[in-house]
Amino acid sequence: MSGPQAPEPTLEGQADASAGSPDEDAAEGIQHSHRMLSFSDALLSIIATVMILPVTHTEISPEQEFDKSVQRLLATRIAVYLMTFLIVTVAWAAHTRLFQVVGKIDDTLALLNLACMMTITFLPFTFSLMVTFPEVPLGIFLFCMCVIAIGAVQALIVLYAFHFPHLLSPQIERSAHRGLYRQRVLGIIVRGPALCLAAAGFSLFFYPASYLLMAMVIVLPHVSKAAGWCRAQLVGPREPPAHSVEVFTFDLHEPLSKERVEAFSDGVYAIVATLLILDICEDNVPDAKDVKEKFQGSLVAALGESGPHFLAYFGSFATVGLLWFAHHSLFLHIRRATQPMGLLNTLSLAFVGGLPLAYQQTSAFTKQPRDELESVRISCAIIFLASIFQFAIWTTALLQEGETLQPSARFGGREHAFMFAKLALYPCASLLAFACTCVLSSFSTAIFHAMQIAVPFAFLLLRLLVRLALAGLRALQGLVGPVLAWPAPGAADEAQSPLLPAPC
Amino acid sequence: MSGPQAPEPTLEGQADASAGSPDEDAAEGIQHSHRMLSFSDALLSIIATVMILPVTHTEISPEQEFDKSVQRLLATRIAVYLMTFLIVTVAWAAHTRLFQVVGKIDDTLALLNLACMMTITFLPFTFSLMVTFPEVPLGIFLFCMCVIAIGAVQALIVLYAFHFPHLLSPQIERSAHRGLYRQRVLGIIVRGPALCLAAAGFSLFFYPASYLLMAMVIVLPHVSKAAGWCRAQLVGPREPPAHSVEVFTFDLHEPLSKERVEAFSDGVYAIVATLLILDICEDNVPDAKDVKEKFQGSLVAALGESGPHFLAYFGSFATVGLLWFAHHSLFLHIRRATQPMGLLNTLSLAFVGGLPLAYQQTSAFTKQPRDELESVRISCAIIFLASIFQFAIWTTALLQEGETLQPSARFGGREHAFMFAKLALYPCASLLAFACTCVLSSFSTAIFHAMQIAVPFAFLLLRLLVRLALAGLRALQGLVGPVLAWPAPGAADEAQSPLLPAPC
Repeated sequence: MSGPQAPEPTLEGQADASAGSPDEDAAEGIQHSHRMLSFSDALLSIIATVMILPVTHTEISPEQEFDKSVQRLLATRIAVYLMTFLIVTVAWAAHTRLFQVVGKIDDTLALLNLACMMTITFLPFTFSLMVTFPEVPLGIFLFCMCVIAIGAVQALIVLYAFHFPHLLSPQIERSAHRGLYRQRVLGIIVRGPALCLAAAGFSLFFYPASYLLMAMVIVLPHVSKAAGWCRAQLVGPREPPAHSVEVFTFDLHEPLSKERVEAFSDGVYAIVATLLILDICEDNVPDAKDVKEKFQGSLVAALGESGPHFLAYFGSFATVGLLWFAHHSLFLHIRRATQPMGLLNTLSLAFVGGLPLAYQQTSAFTKQPRDELESVRISCAIIFLASIFQFAIWTTALLQEGETLQPSARFGGREHAFMFAKLALYPCASLLAFACTCVLSSFSTAIFHAMQIAVPFAFLLLRLLVRLALAGLRALQGLVGPVLAWPAPGAADEAQSPLLPAPC
Repeated sequence: MSGPQAPEPTLEGQADASAGSPDEDAAEGIQHSHRMLSFSDALLSIIATVMILPVTHTEISPEQEFDKSVQRLLATRIAVYLMTFLIVTVAWAAHTRLFQVVGKIDDTLALLNLACMMTITFLPFTFSLMVTFPEVPLGIFLFCMCVIAIGAVQALIVLYAFHFPHLLSPQIERSAHRGLYRQRVLGIIVRGPALCLAAAGFSLFFYPASYLLMAMVIVLPHVSKAAGWCRAQLVGPREPPAHSVEVFTFDLHEPLSKERVEAFSDGVYAIVATLLILDICEDNVPDAKDVKEKFQGSLVAALGESGPHFLAYFGSFATVGLLWFAHHSLFLHIRRATQPMGLLNTLSLAFVGGLPLAYQQTSAFTKQPRDELESVRISCAIIFLASIFQFAIWTTALLQEGETLQPSARFGGREHAFMFAKLALYPCASLLAFACTCVLSSFSTAIFHAMQIAVPFAFLLLRLLVRLALAGLRALQGLVGPVLAWPAPGAADEAQSPLLPAPC
């Protein structure tokens, strides 16, 4: 927690600088890394999310019941998906930190980054292999080799960048302790691969130890963070050695660039929205022969048969779209993302990535009324978890609101009430739908999807309602006494006045 | 072509402004649309590209030969893919232009944009339907309805934004002729849907006319552009009416925001790279039962069987990554993208989107030696087309290099020779591979993939070679006479000197 505010201006300055003076940079073959980072974010977010496809493509024949064995199969695959998501996110976070140190790229770094991406895209495969053959050393071995290869490429990137210091971020480039920085960055990068090397070794004679070591790779940053925090609480903040103050203000544990968190999240939402339409296109274009034989050539009848799928599609797309919208509104009011917020965001995204499963569940089981309520409940649970973690990001941000939030979203700020309503909408709606499945026996997937489609209008209503409520509160306060000033709603109204259209 | 340079500074200014003063904007619930646009770009690029999946998932059993009927099926699906890609790109271009007019968004506009995205994601489905049932009015009708719905939502966005002028781009907001702008923008948006409405009407009694009308939607902008250009060449540029000069300098036909072209391209490359790993994960994790029965429990043997797939994966990923790299280098030196460059970029991306097919071809047919060369040839053709269109972007840019290129990439610029070499590498390599398949009968997919993996090293060698060649030229020139100065290579060397690491 040492100096969490100090590095931020530098990082923002770096982001600003990346917009400027492209002429000079391009001339030297050196580029600010903005576009490469967006590309990497897109790639990593898609990789993290596509692993839901083996889950949704689990074949369940119509005769088969949704029994224990199917549930166990699904549970295993879901666990694989969640773990893969977390692992790729850890790789992404490491990548983010790496390119907070490396500010610019040249051709060699761009190629090294591509090599790094290629190795990361191979992670899901080796992980699937490891889960399918948990006791075979080769699976563990390949997975570890993959992690080690990623670490090696990242170490190469660091060494190369420190060899040509003009590629580093300005703060480090100007620093007198560059050597120390390099040591520290390399240490952080090599830590995970070193554990994996040990795990690969253990896989040959005692494989449970390997799993323990690999679990450590994921929890290590959080554990060391928590340990540091505990120590700070017990014995007071550690006095940094005088000569290296500058080194340790650049805390590599602390900041996740807000821009990159947004880009990664956008990628996840975009691919989730698209996986839905992919299913529609692959399964629901009726076969020309079928239409002739089954429906006497009537395309309308054939399409009518997959009507529920379209309803499910529109409902699911609306849900993904609005969760993105809530995320977008939330991050508009966030100044910087702390590590706990990053973790909550990852968890929220992991469940957003599960939405295609919810869609598949509610559209595949429409013909089995017994399981219908079950699948609606699963969908509600996924949506609830995705949205409650979004809500948790906000509440976590409120704990340190001075650092993390824009003034308008803080307690008493203009947008505070509306933000609360916006983020609470989906948790409440999904709980309501869940309750309905328990109370109403006639509740069906069709009603569920209709509810999903209705939510956008609720969003529009919400602003109206919140404004009315605030106006009511203000009127009430005016009655109680004009001494107690409530600045927020008044300011909001003043801000509204220029919104009225000027006569043109 | 009237005043193509005038609107650009405003657009750039707008992009800069979107980075600044988030505090004020967030407080009013109004946002610069940067993140929403990236999200839309990601969504649209993925939608455009995933339609390759039905092509690659065409089931061809090992016994079946790669005969005429399979070829015809594949050809149809490829045509569907290419058309969908073009249609979605047209929708994307319209979206780009729309948000060049609308500079900021509020909640309502964000929701309207999501509605627009949802309708666009439905386009591929209605298009597949139309192609599967070309003579049934319903298919055409649904497709047209989809286009009309997109137009309606976009018109709503325009009307809303003009109703609250602070949402418009600064240039239009300040303009005295805002009403004229609205008319013009609405006219452009409504044109396509109006044609589709006519097409939907025709579908009921004479469907070929519908197809003609729909084809017009795609070619109309280019035709009107070409007609304008021809007229300008014949009778000289049209004198704009004095009072509306300001209106027509904002030429909606001309600019495609370079940032959004890049974001869209990134999306396509990212999803293509990811489709490859998806196939690996779904098909190549061996079944636990198979390993026990077929391979006597040896996982190594089981994995060895799908070894060629991994080779194919690494080769294909390297190709996608390096094509992205070439694109990245190219756009680094591009200042602004004109319409012909945008069109060439679309064509290049369409073939990049075809790369999963190349991968599928070369990895699926490894067991049928007779078809092996055939599939390598198809892959070469796809790679050649994707890269030659990239090359064409550059040559087109060189035609108007003052407007479109950074100084360093122009004729005689420092990076000119290297850029040429970079962009020419893939067309040459794919031609070479194609030639090999004709000459060497022992050429195999394995060699082809090994070639693909070797290309990155060629990229690194290239810079060295180009530098050596330039140095050689300079030395030669020094011998001929010191009067003829060649500024470029000397400047390049001077630029290199600060790249040497400073002693730290």
